[in-house]
Amino acid sequence: MRLTSYTNYALRTLMYATLAHPRLVRVQDVADAYGISRTHLVKCVHHLGMWGYLINQRGRNGGFRLARAPEAISVAEIVRHTEEGFGTPACGEADTVVLRLVEAVQQAQAAFLSVLEGYTIADITANAADLRCVLGLDVGRAA
Amino acid sequence: MRLTSYTNYALRTLMYATLAHPRLVRVQDVADAYGISRTHLVKCVHHLGMWGYLINQRGRNGGFRLARAPEAISVAEIVRHTEEGFGTPACGEADTVVLRLVEAVQQAQAAFLSVLEGYTIADITANAADLRCVLGLDVGRAA
Repeated sequence: MRLTSYTNYALRTLMYATLAHPRLVRVQDVADAYGISRTHLVKCVHHLGMWGYLINQRGRNGGFRLARAPEAISVAEIVRHTEEGFGTPACGEADTVVLRLVEAVQQAQAAFLSVLEGYTIADITANAADLRCVLGLDVGRAA
Repeated sequence: MRLTSYTNYALRTLMYATLAHPRLVRVQDVADAYGISRTHLVKCVHHLGMWGYLINQRGRNGGFRLARAPEAISVAEIVRHTEEGFGTPACGEADTVVLRLVEAVQQAQAAFLSVLEGYTIADITANAADLRCVLGLDVGRAA
């Protein structure tokens, strides 16, 4: 019962875009900052764009930025987009045998998401000074 | 954010033992009933024995049975045993960068488990008549 790498990458990308704002961010910046494979991030940034969280600007000096205020993006809505299998047990089965178990797990998942409704991207980047330093975003700020 | 196959197997094994009670259950019975690989179940049954949920009886007519009343086993305690990564993001990292995110996810996981504290193995097998029929346990009962 842990979040997938994909969710992790999506949240980190949004955090990075929040901290770099209003500067345009390149996928390579995010890959370097977190030590994540660029290949995985490309798909993630594409999806975040499709879902309306990032604006992609094409071209030689292109990149992406947040499409909404980080205060207006809950962690829960990202998790709903990125995590599969909400409401189903691991096997994907939903027959009589696991009916009560599925109900229990669905209720537990709702409680999980309910907590994450209370956190926005702004909240999880609230320690912005520390984060900018760790992610090497201080230099850009000062410039 | 879904439960692993391992958790699923553990819960199903406990459900089966509950429904078959007081009869001894063999790993092969559980494998046949759910169409799960025997190999996966052997490990699972071994662990459930170690954690004190099953009593294993060796020998030619051996098998296992529940070590406690199903009303006394919460789904949450099984999930705590079987699921890894509670309290950590997918990458296993716990540094400054994801500090607030880890806190949010930990709180969400606590809420998830809190709901499952409210369900016991007896609760998820409460539709016992249906389950015994689907799992082919009716015959044994009648005999």
